[in-house]
Order: sequence, then structure tokens, then C-alpha cells
Amino acid sequence: MNQLNQLYGTSLALLTDLYQLTMAYGYWKNGLAERESVFHLFFRKNPFGGGHSVACGLATAIDFLNNFRFHADDLSYLKTLRGSDANPLFDPEFLDYLRDLNFECDIDAIPEGTTVYPHEPLARVTGPILQCQLIETPLLNILNFQTLIATKAARVCIAADGDRVVEFGLRRAQGIDGGLAASRAAFIGGSGGTSNVLAGKLYDIPVVGTHAHSWVMTFDEEQEAFDRYADAMPNNCVFLVDTYDTLEGVRKAVQTGRRLRDIGHKMLGIRLDSGDLAWLSIEARKILDEAGFVDTQIVASNDLDERLIVSLKQQGARIDTWGIGTKLVTAFDQPALGGVYKLGAIRGDNGEWQYRLKLSEQAIKISNPGILQVRRFSGSTEHRADMIYDVRSSIHLDRPVTMVDPADETRRRTFDHGDSSYDLLVPVFRRGECVYDPPSIRSIRDTVQQQLSQTPASVKRFEFPHNYPVGLEQSLHDLKSSMIREARLKP
Amino acid sequence: MNQLNQLYGTSLALLTDLYQLTMAYGYWKNGLAERESVFHLFFRKNPFGGGHSVACGLATAIDFLNNFRFHADDLSYLKTLRGSDANPLFDPEFLDYLRDLNFECDIDAIPEGTTVYPHEPLARVTGPILQCQLIETPLLNILNFQTLIATKAARVCIAADGDRVVEFGLRRAQGIDGGLAASRAAFIGGSGGTSNVLAGKLYDIPVVGTHAHSWVMTFDEEQEAFDRYADAMPNNCVFLVDTYDTLEGVRKAVQTGRRLRDIGHKMLGIRLDSGDLAWLSIEARKILDEAGFVDTQIVASNDLDERLIVSLKQQGARIDTWGIGTKLVTAFDQPALGGVYKLGAIRGDNGEWQYRLKLSEQAIKISNPGILQVRRFSGSTEHRADMIYDVRSSIHLDRPVTMVDPADETRRRTFDHGDSSYDLLVPVFRRGECVYDPPSIRSIRDTVQQQLSQTPASVKRFEFPHNYPVGLEQSLHDLKSSMIREARLKP
Repeated sequence: MNQLNQLYGTSLALLTDLYQLTMAYGYWKNGLAERESVFHLFFRKNPFGGGHSVACGLATAIDFLNNFRFHADDLSYLKTLRGSDANPLFDPEFLDYLRDLNFECDIDAIPEGTTVYPHEPLARVTGPILQCQLIETPLLNILNFQTLIATKAARVCIAADGDRVVEFGLRRAQGIDGGLAASRAAFIGGSGGTSNVLAGKLYDIPVVGTHAHSWVMTFDEEQEAFDRYADAMPNNCVFLVDTYDTLEGVRKAVQTGRRLRDIGHKMLGIRLDSGDLAWLSIEARKILDEAGFVDTQIVASNDLDERLIVSLKQQGARIDTWGIGTKLVTAFDQPALGGVYKLGAIRGDNGEWQYRLKLSEQAIKISNPGILQVRRFSGSTEHRADMIYDVRSSIHLDRPVTMVDPADETRRRTFDHGDSSYDLLVPVFRRGECVYDPPSIRSIRDTVQQQLSQTPASVKRFEFPHNYPVGLEQSLHDLKSSMIREARLKP
Repeated sequence: MNQLNQLYGTSLALLTDLYQLTMAYGYWKNGLAERESVFHLFFRKNPFGGGHSVACGLATAIDFLNNFRFHADDLSYLKTLRGSDANPLFDPEFLDYLRDLNFECDIDAIPEGTTVYPHEPLARVTGPILQCQLIETPLLNILNFQTLIATKAARVCIAADGDRVVEFGLRRAQGIDGGLAASRAAFIGGSGGTSNVLAGKLYDIPVVGTHAHSWVMTFDEEQEAFDRYADAMPNNCVFLVDTYDTLEGVRKAVQTGRRLRDIGHKMLGIRLDSGDLAWLSIEARKILDEAGFVDTQIVASNDLDERLIVSLKQQGARIDTWGIGTKLVTAFDQPALGGVYKLGAIRGDNGEWQYRLKLSEQAIKISNPGILQVRRFSGSTEHRADMIYDVRSSIHLDRPVTMVDPADETRRRTFDHGDSSYDLLVPVFRRGECVYDPPSIRSIRDTVQQQLSQTPASVKRFEFPHNYPVGLEQSLHDLKSSMIREARLKP
């Protein structure tokens, strides 16, 4: 825990959009700062044209929130900001209010590693509206990116179908933390290790790496390069064979492999980083096998992603380990998850809950009102459906419950007490105190595999995945419909 | 300076690929650690299908290098790493060597804000090969991403054609530093401000922001929401008008704008965040103008990028300020610049320079050998061509020099002493000491504008941009050709 704090040496309280602070100021000036409200963080579409996503980033968000307070230099900076009339943007008393602010929200969230779907709240934040707003941007930043990368990694691992996947994207990652957070999320999503040494240290991820082309180019002869690497580090030998002629490189690796054997060590692998990976891996496998190196693995890299892996496997490539860089750590084909954070309810002047939704011309962009939870119905081997419901509604799980497909209200499903089910969001903060002990990163990684094993194959496939059923509990659906009708009647 | 150190509270020495450390170990074991070598950092293709790029990230890289040393906890971590035989990967004496390591490379680099092109070294690193390798990954991480985003921002600003651009991408950025570094690079590339308050504080960037949909949804009526915002912060009023019905929202903003006027303040703007931005902005402009709010600006946002801006302008949209988020900070349509770092030369056993190149089946992937510099030939108003040359070659600028197009060696250009020219790479580190004083971020931003004004329009256009001429000085070209022929003859 506290990797974020170990990493960052400065207060991150200002890691937010200015409008969160100007709204905070507006709430404070209008006497609304402490008004209790409920926000939900969710996304509207699975990334990469896929049918599922993998929740990730909660432990990092907890780190952030456990240290959320304004420091003197944050407030000094805010004091310098000016409005259009050159007067300060914020009253000094407001800055005092921020200085004394104690984080006191409740947060419920879906544990990392859970398979999740569009419109499900990944997190529900309840508390003073001023505080709920200030943490919107960092929560989105952290959960959007790590969920995106864990989902990408899970897809890559599905394509690799049991083969080892390793991540080495740091050099092309989007900034330092773009690399570190990606390494964390990629490991959770199923990669077996990272080249990123700092990520290994911070997050307890296995680190991998041997040598680059530059090692080979340092020496006059490729054979000498392999031999001298093997002399130096005989217990970590994966030879990169494509600096000059790839299959010649494999033959030279075999020579060095024999030297290693003679001194009681193993040649762990060779790596292909260019060219026709299908053909080269097949030919390399023959050379290795004929020389008796049947255990020597073939590692491949070069702009790979899940679709290329599928294609290479279809071509009969003999690749044991897939090294994935840029395409994984930047989620190249969709580099952002469009997570949003919407107001679901706010207390009125008399303390009663008032539900809220954001209208839109596009039905998919209309948010769900209320104080929401997600119930997952599960068969003996597979998840069957998720139902979004309001925690204040009077659903009883000993009576049948009906959920409505928000895209087609004539499609309904009823579950009764014979169906096994459980709530996805769990308590994480209560009155600002963390009440949740995040599992170890390896345990989260295991959760991903266990969740994926319960996710229907039709949902996990890459081409035209099945829509996993996510519905609104019937009374919530009815409430939402009437609220939309009423809002559209408004002048 | 030292924003990076202010931001990060931990040593970043391990922010590298493990293979840099295993190679370092190999060099050390083989007595080659101090062997002087030369690496060049360059990219092979302009991003986004464009014709130019904007160098960015050097100040951050300097921050990193000024603090590059291994700390006790870095070494403790490295000590825990094990090879395939469960023995430690590194000898303790090697870790002592790392502990005592003083960074002592020379670095020459192209200043931030300069227009740059494929194959030009953005940085040249000269020094002990062990050290050159350790810093490869962080240099690539920092320069790849910031150059990518500065280039994207410059494109967005070219599309905006003098209109103000503001960046608000933090919530969708790739991690915390993915947001912070993007805000820095976007400002350098031409954006006028950011929503990211921490970036504002760290990098001295103007911050912007007013209110979100949630502010409007907090109140029963949109009019009340605008009025109460204006009461709280009358010197920072840009009203988001699309929570319910956009043009109704504009009319309500006008009501609040009148209240603001009555108390001596100005309604700075309205913001459109959904719907048909072309039509809505035209209609909103009419409403504002008819009500006498001719100075009130129209801000637009909603998944915008440079191509959408061009399209909206062609449709006659009346938009004054463009708010760009996800598409800018993630460089959505190409989220990574493929910068690489290649060995150009290494001292032989007798101290003589040996030149190196990396072969490839693809000519574009063959690196340039030598110790390289870039000379830019410039006319009175525009850059004309860049020539990559070896600093050890005997070119004399008082005699004509010829450069060869590497893609077609029959295309040559000769420049003589009448042509004004200057070298792009400047000294940044000498024997590990920083000898370069990075300009202020605003000065770098000015450099971008000045450089772009000298970049031919045909190179800057989005569709089928002209290839700006980048050639190899003739003797370098001849040397490279002969090295390739020789290497291909090798067994």
C-alpha cells in the first residue's frame, strides 16, 4: 500500500480540474458545501469493441484518498489565481476552509479484478457535495486508465491462450506514471511480468529482461556478443537473434547454448523482434529442437497486440512467450476509457433525497438516478446477468425481482430466490476512513482469472461479442422513465 | 526547474527496462562498462500522418538526469532479483559499482519547441556505454510522449487558426503523469491553458475552469444554478448551457449575464458540450448578439480534435475557444511516438572510433552510423532543408556541401556558404554536468510559434503534407552505403 505516496513527493490535492474548485467555492458561498450527495463513476462502452472490462485501479485510488488534504503550498498557489477583473478567484476564508477540510465521504466500489460492464457504477461516492466534486477528476484519471489497461491485458492473455505474456512498454508509455500504472494494470490483467524495474519494485511484479540489439552491436561478432553475455549472466540467457540474419542468429545462440550446458546452465530462450514471426518461429523451433534445445523458449515481440497474436497462432507460429509493449501500455487502438462521474441524488433543503439524472438526446448518455448498487446473478459455472438497483428500494431477494433492458424495455428477466446472487460494490470508505483492505496484487490477478473463467465465452470473444445482460431493476427503470418524461416536459 | 523532483518523492533510477541493467552488468563483467559510445535518439515517422513534429520534454529529461543516482533502496531491490537457478542476478560488487556511479555522459539535444523531422537525432548521448544504456528508457519515455503531445497540440492550434485552445484532458489521461506531462506539452504546443490545477502549479501554466453539469443538476432550476454561480464567482463566469435544452440554456445565461452587468461584471462566455456544435454555436451567437453580449465568447468541447475543428470552421461555426480533452492528452489517433535509441559509434580496444549501424530488411529501419549533428538551412523566411552530418567529418561551411536523400540517392541538393544555416543540437550535459539553462515554458511556447511560422505551409498541412527535405551529408551517405553493403556480405 501507499505506493502512490512513495512515488509522489508532493501533495496531489490539486490533481483535479479547476472547475471542481470553482464549483466547490460556489457551493461554499451558497451554503451548500456540506449538502450530502451521491455520485456514480461508470463507463458507457466496453473498450476495443469488446464485450467485457476488468475493473482496476482501486488500490491506487485508495492511496490517493488516504492522503487527500490541502497543504500550505497548494493554498498559496490557489491564492495567486485571479478572475477576469484581476481580483483573486477565491476568498481567503474559503482557502481556510480547504485547509481544514477532512475527507469524510463514504465510498463503495467494485473490487479490482472483477469483470464489469457498461453503466455499472464502478464506484459510488456519498458525502458533502464539495468533497464529492473535488475527487471526481483523480478518481476518473486513476480508474479510467487502469481499467483500460487491465482490460487490454486480459484480452492479450485470452489471445495468448495460456502462453506467457510479458509487458515491456515503458519507453513508449504516456509519461512516467503512464508506464508505472500500466505495468501494474497489465500484471493484474494477466501479464506475467514487466521490463519496468521501478514498477517491479513498487508493485511487487516480476521483472524480466536480458539484452538489446545494442549489446550485439557493441561486439564485432554476434557469436562473441552471445558468448560474453552468457559468461556474465549464465542464469538469465534469452538471446535476441535478429540483429543481422535471424536464423543465423539462432544457430549462433545454439553454439552459446552448448557452452552454457557445459557449465551447468540453461539457455532459457531466444527472442525474435522483427520479420515474419510465424515463419521465423517455426524455423527457429526446428533448429533448436534438432540441436536438442527442446526446452528453450521462443519469445516474440514487435508491435504485437491481441489480434496479431490470434493471427500468428492461426499460422502455426511456435511462440512460447509474447512480449507486448506499446500496444498494451497505451491501449493503442483505444487509448482512453470514457468513464464519467454523474450526480445520482442530493439531499433537499429538508434533508429528503432528491434523485437526479443528466438528460441527453442520446438515450445511452442519460445517467441513472438514485443510490445504486449492482447485483450479479450467477449460475453454477457462469455469470448470468447484472442488475443495477437502488439501495433504498424495497427489493427483497426472497421474492422474485425483475430487471429491464434499458435499451429495450420489452426485454425483461425475472430472478427468484433460487438464483444465487451477490452485490458487486463493497464498502471502501466510511466517513472518510478506509474500511477496505485491498488484496495483494497477485490475489487481484487471480481474481481476474477466476472472474474470466465465469464470464461467458460469447462475451469474451473479439468479433461481435454477445452483450452480457445488464438491466435496471424494474422500479428503478420505472422511476427513471418517469423522470425523463417529466424533464422533457419542462420548459 | 526540478518539477520532476518536486513531483516524485522516490528515486527514479530504476525507471528503466531490466535489460538495461542486465546489459550494464554484462558490460561491467566484461570490462566494457566505461567504453565510450555514442547513441542517438530519433523517431522514424511524423505522428498523425503529418509532415512535422515539435520537440518537447528536454527540461523534464534534464530534471531526471540531474538526479540520476542509485539509492540504497534501489540496490536492496536489485539484490532480491534472482536468475533461473535461483541465484542472485547481480554480484554484490556490481551493486557497489552502481551505488558509486556518477553520471558523466555528454548530451547534445535539440531545444524544446524546435520543429523536427524523422531520422534527426533529438538527442545524442556520448559516454560510458553502461551509463548510456541505463538512461535509454527514461529518455525515450519522456521525449517520446512530450514530443507526441506538443505535436498534437500544435496541429490543434493550426486548425484553430488563432482561436484560443484550452486543454482539459486530465480525467482521461494515461495516469497521473500522463495528465501532468500532457498539460505541459500541450501548453508548449500552443494551448492557452489547462484545467489541470497541479500542472498549473508545477509548470506555471494558466488554469481555466468554471462549472460542470453537476452544478446545474444540483439546483432545481437551471436559471437558479447560473444565478448562484454568478453570485459566488462573478469574475469567472462561463456558463455550461447544455444540461437540458441548449438554446434555452443560452437564454438563461443571458438573464444571468444581465445581472452580472448590473453589478459591474462581465459574462465571459457560454460553453457548448454536446449536440450539433456548428448549428448551436451559430444560433447561440445570434441570441447573445441580439441581447448585446457581443463580447461573450462561445466555448465548445466534446471529443474535439484538429480534424473536427477544421470541419466545424468550414461549416461556419461561431466558436471562439476550443476545449480539447481526451483526443489531445492521449494523442488518441496515434497514442505513441515510435522514438528509438540506437548505437552510432563505440571506441575499439585501441581507443579508435568504430561506427555502427543496425541492419534491417526495411531501409527506413537502418540507423545512421557516426556521431551526428543536424544542420538546418534556412531562407529569409522559411526553413529549406536539414542535413544530418557527422561531427568528425571534414565538412567546411565555407565550401559547398551536398546532401543526399536517403530514400532516393539520386536526389541531391547542394548548399554553399551563401546559405544561412545553423546546428540544431546544442550542448546540454558535459561530463555529467548540465551546461544548458532551459528557457521558461512561455519562452519555449513562443519558440514553437516562431518555428512554425518558418515551417513551409505545405509541410504543415494535414492532407498529404509535403516531405520536408532531410538528407545525409554526402560523405556520411557514402559511408553508410558501404557499411550496409559490407554487413550484408557477412556470413
